[in-house]
Amino acid sequence: MSLGEFDLIQRYFTRPVRRAPLGVGDDCALIAPAPGMQLAVSTDMLVEGRHFVSTVAPRRLGHKALAVNLSDLAACGARPLAYTLAFALPRADAAWLAELAAGLHALADAHGIELVGGDTTAGPLNLCLTVFGEVPPGQALLRSGAAAGDDLWVSGDTLGDARLALEALRGTLSLEGSAFERCRRAMEQPQPRVALGLALRGVASAAIDISDGLLGDLGHVLRRSGAAAAHADRAGAGATTPFGATLWAEALPRSADLATQLVERQLEYLLAGGDDYELLFSAAPARAEAVRAAAAASGTPVARIGRIEARPGVQVLDGAGQPVATPWASFDHFRSA
Amino acid sequence: MSLGEFDLIQRYFTRPVRRAPLGVGDDCALIAPAPGMQLAVSTDMLVEGRHFVSTVAPRRLGHKALAVNLSDLAACGARPLAYTLAFALPRADAAWLAELAAGLHALADAHGIELVGGDTTAGPLNLCLTVFGEVPPGQALLRSGAAAGDDLWVSGDTLGDARLALEALRGTLSLEGSAFERCRRAMEQPQPRVALGLALRGVASAAIDISDGLLGDLGHVLRRSGAAAAHADRAGAGATTPFGATLWAEALPRSADLATQLVERQLEYLLAGGDDYELLFSAAPARAEAVRAAAAASGTPVARIGRIEARPGVQVLDGAGQPVATPWASFDHFRSA
Repeated sequence: MSLGEFDLIQRYFTRPVRRAPLGVGDDCALIAPAPGMQLAVSTDMLVEGRHFVSTVAPRRLGHKALAVNLSDLAACGARPLAYTLAFALPRADAAWLAELAAGLHALADAHGIELVGGDTTAGPLNLCLTVFGEVPPGQALLRSGAAAGDDLWVSGDTLGDARLALEALRGTLSLEGSAFERCRRAMEQPQPRVALGLALRGVASAAIDISDGLLGDLGHVLRRSGAAAAHADRAGAGATTPFGATLWAEALPRSADLATQLVERQLEYLLAGGDDYELLFSAAPARAEAVRAAAAASGTPVARIGRIEARPGVQVLDGAGQPVATPWASFDHFRSA
Repeated sequence: MSLGEFDLIQRYFTRPVRRAPLGVGDDCALIAPAPGMQLAVSTDMLVEGRHFVSTVAPRRLGHKALAVNLSDLAACGARPLAYTLAFALPRADAAWLAELAAGLHALADAHGIELVGGDTTAGPLNLCLTVFGEVPPGQALLRSGAAAGDDLWVSGDTLGDARLALEALRGTLSLEGSAFERCRRAMEQPQPRVALGLALRGVASAAIDISDGLLGDLGHVLRRSGAAAAHADRAGAGATTPFGATLWAEALPRSADLATQLVERQLEYLLAGGDDYELLFSAAPARAEAVRAAAAASGTPVARIGRIEARPGVQVLDGAGQPVATPWASFDHFRSA
């Protein structure tokens, strides 16, 4: 079935907007943030072979494309409002598009947000979403707010499962059927931690999502928080030193499927697996009970996994308190295979 | 030279933000619209071979990628505030990226806007920008506001030149050197009509940009305005009929280079050329002087080219008042070559 650009937008992506003053179909969409609110914006581009495998079910791809963007709003503690979708497709396949739209709409409905605009073109498969959320001024969770001595926390209880699924698809390990399906769902249908992000406003000192791997994303928090602290101390003069961190390997939450892998593989997937849409956040030790309350209120498991240190460098300790080697680089789209 | 993802964002795309509360480098950017303003949002994706040729100078590509997005804000009468940039690149080439960034930054500076966030990945070349502007509630220029009897106007005085350049590149016609350079600049460095869009608030009844060709984009205005008028008359009951239009072929503004082409080619490029980032807008005949004042105030040429009709169908009349054939379809990314 051949569809024109106008037809396919009309058929699959035009739904009446309830909150936005103007949705799909004009040169621009119009969004009306609540008075006094700041608008949080994030954009993510997904490319076949990089962010998803060619055999992904289109409904799951729709889910994931929106989920990874909502995860960025979650990491800022923003309440999702709306999103736009631009995509390039090799051809307009009605059945595939209907499924993609169903995956997008289902997750959007679950978060009470709406598709307000977009663009379609022919080209190599590419999905680019931009999400909008609102946050009261001064309450956004930033990467730069951690202090030395803060506890480090992570959400979720299955870090590394997305990587397990990817490696099973690549053939570097094997998983039995139900384990593979569960891990593949972790890879293809991540649940953005929006409710936790909202509950952590005023509780967490810094937050980030760990889509590029826990260690790499922790590095962003340490660099930006160290720089912010130095800037506050010295009015921006001189070089800045990043903070460091201690992590307790045994505290990192993992599934039974990952726990049966070799220890080195467990550590790599936990610390540098990638595609885990969990929140890594810091909070003052005195706020530990408030963190647990936020986790309970949002129905999200959290684990305390380490501590921010004033000296640079990240040390991962095993159960005996001995440092373990962490030779993996963070995921980089221009350096990794 | 090989650059990592983090390095290249840092080097070419991180500039201090002056207006946004938070720019590039966190999970989200933060934008603070002025109190009471609505946020206008548009997103456009550019793909090599579709929206630009592989030999385009990267500085011009940067310009064009932002210009086509700003053109959407112009068509809504919104004041540009900020934009995000997501792109996929086959490889990270420092010289190419520096030029791309220079083209983006120059046009952004010209409009007083800033890059607040983005995403980079490896993949087939693809640029996806999302722009944000602000507009007072109720003042956005929509496609749906035209009334039967309104005059039709278009901005600019060189419709069709971008198509001339494209056809010269394709080898279906030849242009001498300076004409080719001028037309190629029209194709690669369009000037978004932001100032005109702002000046037309409260003057134009409907507006659209004609990036997909004048006739096709006019069709969107006729459909949506006809539907809106029917909805207002009959509280949404029953089928809606699009409006129609009469256009005067001789009133369509064209360059000397286009005016020397065959008449049929002139008409095709004027009415269905594509890649003209001009505004097509309607206004009540009584507002003709206000339109001319808006054009003068914004330093933008405008021409009155026709009229909105209550009956559906678009008729293009020649200088003798005789209808001319208009057999060209509007550009459609899934139907055109």
